[in-house]
Amino acid sequence: MLEPKPITSLQNDRIKAIRALEMRKSRKETGLFVAEGTSLLITARDNGFTPQTLVFRSGSAGSGVAKGLVAWALASGVECLEVSEAVLGKLSSKDNPQNMLSVFQQRWHPLPNATKVADGEVWLALEEVRDPGNLGTIIRTADAVGAAGIILIGNCCDPYSHECVRATMGSVFAVPLVRTERTLFIDWLGGWRGDIVGTHLEGAEDFRTVSYRAPVLLTMGSEGPGLSPQLTAACTRLVKIPMAGQLDSLNLAVATALVLYQIRGPNLSL
Amino acid sequence: MLEPKPITSLQNDRIKAIRALEMRKSRKETGLFVAEGTSLLITARDNGFTPQTLVFRSGSAGSGVAKGLVAWALASGVECLEVSEAVLGKLSSKDNPQNMLSVFQQRWHPLPNATKVADGEVWLALEEVRDPGNLGTIIRTADAVGAAGIILIGNCCDPYSHECVRATMGSVFAVPLVRTERTLFIDWLGGWRGDIVGTHLEGAEDFRTVSYRAPVLLTMGSEGPGLSPQLTAACTRLVKIPMAGQLDSLNLAVATALVLYQIRGPNLSL
Repeated sequence: MLEPKPITSLQNDRIKAIRALEMRKSRKETGLFVAEGTSLLITARDNGFTPQTLVFRSGSAGSGVAKGLVAWALASGVECLEVSEAVLGKLSSKDNPQNMLSVFQQRWHPLPNATKVADGEVWLALEEVRDPGNLGTIIRTADAVGAAGIILIGNCCDPYSHECVRATMGSVFAVPLVRTERTLFIDWLGGWRGDIVGTHLEGAEDFRTVSYRAPVLLTMGSEGPGLSPQLTAACTRLVKIPMAGQLDSLNLAVATALVLYQIRGPNLSL
Repeated sequence: MLEPKPITSLQNDRIKAIRALEMRKSRKETGLFVAEGTSLLITARDNGFTPQTLVFRSGSAGSGVAKGLVAWALASGVECLEVSEAVLGKLSSKDNPQNMLSVFQQRWHPLPNATKVADGEVWLALEEVRDPGNLGTIIRTADAVGAAGIILIGNCCDPYSHECVRATMGSVFAVPLVRTERTLFIDWLGGWRGDIVGTHLEGAEDFRTVSYRAPVLLTMGSEGPGLSPQLTAACTRLVKIPMAGQLDSLNLAVATALVLYQIRGPNLSL
């Protein structure tokens, strides 16, 4: 039987390597990311993810859920590190660290074959989204509506940052993620059979009254600038969300949720 | 003609007092708050707010929008401080500070007379919301749907924190804010004529199929725990947002937006 490895030094090489995953550069080089807490680890396991490393606070895994997770990890050949409270505090991005964190391999999916996407699938494409909290919230909402996947276009923030992963509440393990460049993406759109929907200030149609032609691809632009002219031109429908008052936009995660619920609404029930 | 006062020292008392407004304690003692950027100042002015103090980067107000705002402020008797880039950097909560920031008096409204709220009004009540980004996004959405006001119940985060004000994108100046305690609020609910709607995991009705009885009061609970048992019991309708997958909740700002758009939808058009 494998045993967890005890670590109390902040200078330990494994600990330094995990701390480094706070930096995008290090996540990019290693292809790894960190998920904090037992709840995210359970969601990961339920979605077929096995961590590379599991870190837990010394003495916290003697019973209950934590004990079961460590036993599962050891049986799966996962490196398990039993660390002091001080070490865990340094690894955590929070002031009150949870008792457990896990290191996973990132998963990037290829673009699907556009001509073969089934009518029932809804895909979401995000162009240069900047805020990790927004991106995490959008991944969570995409999961909630059963979207088929999310395509990140161009210079987006990293879905595998600590902040984004936390905001997904585990949905980062459930929603397939694709990344591509804008020109490649626009080429790929040529094969898309259904509506390519953009939300836009110039949109002539109320998003609530459109009959969306399946399969639907919803594209959302960056916070602030919105969709680029190139992507706007590639849309088959430009819709708008009505607003009272003098506002001209909603928060990106809110706008995305409203349109996703509209499109996927008929498929959702209590 | 009044002139702006030049300041280059970080030790200046006015500068120290404005910096202190980053702390909730100082905002509470003074009743003041900070809004960064020209865009928020314009929104404030359009909503009848005049700042107590306007701070701008030395040399940045010689022309354009900034010049007009400083002229308006001076003519309105506002204290105008022309500061060095270093001073502005210290006052700002961002890495790339804007050229201008303003200090305003907070506005807290009393609870409306519950029995006299008009049928067309929708009110939102938030119980112990914790995340300033969520609260700011919700204030922005409430503005977008034309909600009559927001009631903050119990120990909520501060709508006048820098982070929340920024997330409102100016809507903090447009949406009336009320604060109260839970027991007072539940007493006050006794006079409410229409539906008191709560979103709840135990909700039996799909939020999209309910006929809401006007005037509607929507109550939303805290991130995580949701509505307290006391407020849940006070609701006349418990609704639920359908979700695919294994999720049991959405981000609070997203859930609030979905229900607000459902309730206010008939009043909104392009």
